Amino acid sequence: MTRPAPDTAHPVAIVGAGLVGSGWALVFARAGLRVQVYDPVAEVRAGILPWARESASALAAVGLIEDVEAVMARLHVVDTLEAALDGATYIQESVFERVDVKSEISRAIDAVMAPNAIVGSSSSGIPASRFTQDCAHRGRFLIAHPVNPPHLVPVVELVPAPWTEAEALAGARELMQAVGQVPVTLSREIDGFILNRLQGALLNEAWALYDEGYAGLADIDATIAHGLGLRWAFMGPFETIDLNAPGGIVDYAARLGGMYHAMAQSRTPRAWPEETIRRAGEERREALPEAELAARRAWRDRALTGIAAFKKAGGLAP
Amino acid sequence: MTRPAPDTAHPVAIVGAGLVGSGWALVFARAGLRVQVYDPVAEVRAGILPWARESASALAAVGLIEDVEAVMARLHVVDTLEAALDGATYIQESVFERVDVKSEISRAIDAVMAPNAIVGSSSSGIPASRFTQDCAHRGRFLIAHPVNPPHLVPVVELVPAPWTEAEALAGARELMQAVGQVPVTLSREIDGFILNRLQGALLNEAWALYDEGYAGLADIDATIAHGLGLRWAFMGPFETIDLNAPGGIVDYAARLGGMYHAMAQSRTPRAWPEETIRRAGEERREALPEAELAARRAWRDRALTGIAAFKKAGGLAP
Repeated sequence: MTRPAPDTAHPVAIVGAGLVGSGWALVFARAGLRVQVYDPVAEVRAGILPWARESASALAAVGLIEDVEAVMARLHVVDTLEAALDGATYIQESVFERVDVKSEISRAIDAVMAPNAIVGSSSSGIPASRFTQDCAHRGRFLIAHPVNPPHLVPVVELVPAPWTEAEALAGARELMQAVGQVPVTLSREIDGFILNRLQGALLNEAWALYDEGYAGLADIDATIAHGLGLRWAFMGPFETIDLNAPGGIVDYAARLGGMYHAMAQSRTPRAWPEETIRRAGEERREALPEAELAARRAWRDRALTGIAAFKKAGGLAP
Repeated sequence: MTRPAPDTAHPVAIVGAGLVGSGWALVFARAGLRVQVYDPVAEVRAGILPWARESASALAAVGLIEDVEAVMARLHVVDTLEAALDGATYIQESVFERVDVKSEISRAIDAVMAPNAIVGSSSSGIPASRFTQDCAHRGRFLIAHPVNPPHLVPVVELVPAPWTEAEALAGARELMQAVGQVPVTLSREIDGFILNRLQGALLNEAWALYDEGYAGLADIDATIAHGLGLRWAFMGPFETIDLNAPGGIVDYAARLGGMYHAMAQSRTPRAWPEETIRRAGEERREALPEAELAARRAWRDRALTGIAAFKKAGGLAP
């Protein structure tokens, strides 16, 4: 993919700098942009630069970043929302995902943003229309939903509210391409967007199979981790089935569409059962004690770093 | 994982040697076993060894096979079912997936197999009870469903029919572990088993989103290929969500279970619409002309070979 060069004349603002916001800061700084990072919690602010240095070094170790110091020099942690937004033409908001919290920060951003700035929210499932309706610049707000952590997983879902200006959506898409992410643009809002609807559909079936005792968590996980997931690491579900029948996707649908339809009909949507969740929690904590969760997350991120490097080297990256 | 050593005193029989059966032949030969391969079509038989040599060489190029000639020396293409089964204690059947075809070959195998041999069928969704009921040795039959191609994707689903002997199931599991595959054992039959039920749930949602115009095929594919699929290449869906909330899987279910339940309720199961399939076919053939399907499958297999080597080197392989 030929990428446009990012506009380095204006800084990007990061509002909310937990794991998602910090990852975003690294995405933009890595691409050559000045980044102004704000979080209301002093402890969170204090952790941003050490985390960024460690993560940038890990990327440098596999050749995904050339100059760690140059990246770090572009990261500026600030103490106020105003300082973060100063001069920013793009603002990435990553606060806690609850409608009231998103509404409050959106109004605060709205009050100080440049009128032509674009605001992308990291919301993973709540559409922007539910928390930007009262903003004076609501035409400049949209969803820019990443996968955690955004500096290792490039996809970002762009979802316009009914009032999002086409130019704001186009601007966000261009920026995301310029900084090396993979923007996916939805035509309109839907709860969960695409990514989490696909994950949810798979999870709902996985919980049902576990609940009904067909297999344990580890065995169900293995069907993806050592099976389907290998193809999905570089091809989507449609290309996968397109290559999986002699005559392509239409041939595949003719051969197997009936089987998949019957499977869907065999299920009635229901909530994940409480008792089953409890049992799954016990099974997971036996496999991975709670004290080791953080270390396992670091393992996951190392693996994702390796996959990013592998895909880039093999021409499988976007 | 500590693996048992495979029993090299007895050959493995491959019955049906299209892409799936040929991949299986390579799996067993790579692990040190003598393999007797049979397919009723002379043209198919003639293609087995050239394909195996090319595939084994690709594995050798990334360090996944040491000695191509030694692997090739274990592959024996034979002209009759009897010759394939001669002395075999394990038989992998990979004929066309239709109940009548599976029934006929199962009866033929039944007539000449050693009474204590185990027969695994590569069926991707039809349970063994539908095509082994009339076999004298039906207690020795089960499903051993791989992902295509089996020599590059290690998972294999073992699904017992109600009459499958526990010892046959255990023997198949031990063999699969010994030859480097990742066996997943189901407690009982269900249409589509686990892997294709998970794939089907995701596909059904993907088709619905495409049908309703939320995004194009390529954008929906990108949410997996450059998003969820990166994690799923080495972690299953349950471990993924276990690491994706501060308190683990129970915490994740408390935070997001409601959202996923609402998504499921918003869908009524329906067949993939004909007109939408046709449109998807056109979109795919614009992205990848029919004449290039074979080359793209070869690209997929090279990528899978690379991922296998990457996972092995990084300690992410089973």
